[in-house]
Amino acid sequence: MTTATYTVKGMTCGHCVSSVKEEVGEISGITAVEVDLASGLLTVESDDPIDSEQIKAAVQEAGYEVDPS
Amino acid sequence: MTTATYTVKGMTCGHCVSSVKEEVGEISGITAVEVDLASGLLTVESDDPIDSEQIKAAVQEAGYEVDPS
Repeated sequence: MTTATYTVKGMTCGHCVSSVKEEVGEISGITAVEVDLASGLLTVESDDPIDSEQIKAAVQEAGYEVDPS
Repeated sequence: MTTATYTVKGMTCGHCVSSVKEEVGEISGITAVEVDLASGLLTVESDDPIDSEQIKAAVQEAGYEVDPS
């Protein structure tokens, strides 16, 4: 199992969290998604590693940005 | 036609606006709902006047509060 973390910028409320969870959760191979609103921390679990570009694209699709730092 | 305005507190993003619009729009007799995120202004149109308690209850159902002032 692989766990990867990202920081998402721009989420302001629980609805934003839900949008990110939904979009990221649709990526093939992902088994669990957790998002913390206060810190912006996005934690993604998968059986095999997921290309970070796919994660970033899903976050953008939801309307937010992954902090590159 | 009747137009009534309220100020909604606690909305932070477009998802919040959508939630308020959806809940208030479900009230019987309402013909149009507009919500401005920046000001919190909720504008409700209806053929006949709507009890403000119904509006407040719908806003609370969405997870926000009507500013009593």
